[in-house]
Amino acid sequence: MKTDILIVGGGPAGIIAGQTAKGIDPELKITMVKDEPGIIIRCSEPYVIGGEVKLNDIIHSDDEMIGSKGITVLVDRVTGIDYKRKTAWTRNNREISFDRLILATGAKPFIPRIQGNKLKNVFTLRNAEDTKNLKRVSDKAENAVIIGGGAIGVEVGSLLRKKGLNVTIVEIASQLLAGAYDEEFSQKVELVLREKGINVLLGKGVSAIEGEKNVEEVSIEGERIPADFVVISAGVRADTELAEEIGCRIGRFGIKIDKYCRTSLNDVYACGDCAQSLSFITKKPVPSQLATTAVLEGKIAGANAAGGREEFPRIVNPSVTAFFDSAIGRVGLTEKQARDEGIPYVVGYGKSLNKYPSQREAEFIENKLVFEKETKRLIGAQVFGGKEGIDERIDLLSLAIHKGVRIEDLCHFSHCAHPELSPLPFTEPIVLAAEDALNRI
Amino acid sequence: MKTDILIVGGGPAGIIAGQTAKGIDPELKITMVKDEPGIIIRCSEPYVIGGEVKLNDIIHSDDEMIGSKGITVLVDRVTGIDYKRKTAWTRNNREISFDRLILATGAKPFIPRIQGNKLKNVFTLRNAEDTKNLKRVSDKAENAVIIGGGAIGVEVGSLLRKKGLNVTIVEIASQLLAGAYDEEFSQKVELVLREKGINVLLGKGVSAIEGEKNVEEVSIEGERIPADFVVISAGVRADTELAEEIGCRIGRFGIKIDKYCRTSLNDVYACGDCAQSLSFITKKPVPSQLATTAVLEGKIAGANAAGGREEFPRIVNPSVTAFFDSAIGRVGLTEKQARDEGIPYVVGYGKSLNKYPSQREAEFIENKLVFEKETKRLIGAQVFGGKEGIDERIDLLSLAIHKGVRIEDLCHFSHCAHPELSPLPFTEPIVLAAEDALNRI
Repeated sequence: MKTDILIVGGGPAGIIAGQTAKGIDPELKITMVKDEPGIIIRCSEPYVIGGEVKLNDIIHSDDEMIGSKGITVLVDRVTGIDYKRKTAWTRNNREISFDRLILATGAKPFIPRIQGNKLKNVFTLRNAEDTKNLKRVSDKAENAVIIGGGAIGVEVGSLLRKKGLNVTIVEIASQLLAGAYDEEFSQKVELVLREKGINVLLGKGVSAIEGEKNVEEVSIEGERIPADFVVISAGVRADTELAEEIGCRIGRFGIKIDKYCRTSLNDVYACGDCAQSLSFITKKPVPSQLATTAVLEGKIAGANAAGGREEFPRIVNPSVTAFFDSAIGRVGLTEKQARDEGIPYVVGYGKSLNKYPSQREAEFIENKLVFEKETKRLIGAQVFGGKEGIDERIDLLSLAIHKGVRIEDLCHFSHCAHPELSPLPFTEPIVLAAEDALNRI
Repeated sequence: MKTDILIVGGGPAGIIAGQTAKGIDPELKITMVKDEPGIIIRCSEPYVIGGEVKLNDIIHSDDEMIGSKGITVLVDRVTGIDYKRKTAWTRNNREISFDRLILATGAKPFIPRIQGNKLKNVFTLRNAEDTKNLKRVSDKAENAVIIGGGAIGVEVGSLLRKKGLNVTIVEIASQLLAGAYDEEFSQKVELVLREKGINVLLGKGVSAIEGEKNVEEVSIEGERIPADFVVISAGVRADTELAEEIGCRIGRFGIKIDKYCRTSLNDVYACGDCAQSLSFITKKPVPSQLATTAVLEGKIAGANAAGGREEFPRIVNPSVTAFFDSAIGRVGLTEKQARDEGIPYVVGYGKSLNKYPSQREAEFIENKLVFEKETKRLIGAQVFGGKEGIDERIDLLSLAIHKGVRIEDLCHFSHCAHPELSPLPFTEPIVLAAEDALNRI
């Protein structure tokens, strides 16, 4: 068969790339090859395992999200591509010739080399099958060990604990959510998890996962923790296999792309988890395996593959994580990252109630802003608190970083105030943090 | 007595002006004259009347908020000022000579000339006494009539209705929240109020408030509505009496100030409800009797009276109103205002769930963005939905207006996404509205 644009991969990057291309030029013939039928909303998988959401509610049909947009969907797998002949072959013996190729091949869970990692009931969490199995096993289990204290580890751990399991999270770094937050913000998360009874082991490596056939315990530097199952949430790695085969240049975190989401090969675009993003602030490669990045890059890749010329504004990686009644969010550089990059900086802290103090449900919200010292521009932020107002503040601060907002802009930031909805007029934590930073300069 | 800075008025503008001046130069002698002891958080008054919050919880002592900052507080009233001699006299026969004067005299409720407006149980809502009386009377009443369908009218009406009263809101304009929202957004509010059983009368004037001594009914263009009490919430007018006396230039909406919050007289500053703000977008005078504006202007007036030179970024009037389980917010110009100003514009609409669809508590959130056609810059926004995420989106859009954000910036806006906290990655309503606007250009 022949197609104008071939999209390999059916995650958010591929879907949005296809929809965008079709929106720009409805005449284009667009074909998407994806491994499995249906689209699972991956961020919701922990909630299915926790029993708060049904698996069926987080799976959408290909038809609904892709087919109805006039894109041909093939549930199949591309096994080889001849770049010069612009032809792809699939597992089901299809031959597809294309004009332009969009690689949206995603990422694979990283599995550390630990003895016993192939035992039964050792899981990673990526697709619907993983989710179903983890739900089934955890429904009858008592003890869970989670290897990796990143966002997925923290969320799965919290939801399993809410379900009543004994949960241990073991993380080789000295803090939870390492790389994303400064230590004092990670510690706020740690404190909540510990208060809720999660056993948090930091700076410790797993020696072995032990058991006959099923997992029975996890050995962590001498300590032995009983485990009915293990979740490995040690991050993901870009799936660059096809890209490498056809000769795309590959970077440390994935397929190299420019600001138009073009790879090093003509007419080949990449987007989403398989692509290597560049930091808006440092201009250096940065890992960014987020659905939101995938959507943004999908838009750019799709538009440009359809003949447009849209630019990607680079990555500030806004993200947010929820656990029990709390949430934490981050964007841009942490203080540590600014220091490691050799960027002279100043930080500011702000803390206040997220509603007027007289409102019963008021909860504390606190944030830390990182500014480049010379330009006084915002380069990073971390926000912690109850579940209301964390993600939107991160969104605001993401826009602020992209628009070059300075300390003084935030000191004079014109926001709204309402007893039920926001802090008192003179206690907005973003403004307090900016004022604090100004005092430290 | 002698003081470096005399502040007349003890609302948010005066308090923040004093605190800011003291922060800049702790040696300054600062004196504040205020009418009543204590500081009431005025936005919370409707919640006290509704019985959700206690009056004591929204009153702070002068000591806590002013005295402890090293500012001398006099509960008294300035009755006259000799500008040339830089001396003020008070009701309690104090004579205060000053170097610099900050007028933060606030605003007074506007009372339309309606027959019967002096009857017992006809209230306005401004100070603690009003709040206490309205709480007491409404606790035993059945029927309330609210004259004026602005933010205060809508909030007091909703909270009285929640308390079980029969509530009529009568508004002379053809829509609720007139001037702040376009008609189709006001109608969303109207629909909620009607669904909850509030009698909303639009485009109608009150002929008379009737009764012997107490209010008994309100006559509205022939219709007679039973009323145990009446709340007049017809807006406020800047209190410019003292300013006029000493010869400050007065504008349509209050004391004229420049971007340094200086009045037309040397060494005299004004801030808050008594001052006339200028629009960031049109550069024209605009009413802005919000606590948040008062705080911003207080910072500028205080800093500059203390010898600084800070500039006020002009007004975009972000604000938000809550009623029952809903909230609505706005910032900048409405579509109608853009049209009336002769600014060529394009609008865009976006609507989506505020959480992932699989989350049980997900609620719709919808917004309308107004862009200047030529520059594609954001000049206005309106957001409606449940109570989560309205005010923070308005804050974000306020910052966006101030930073000259364009349609394309918002189409490529890098935000976070999380099942429990935010819309799906490709359904952020701000992005959807920007994409919609781009399609309409």
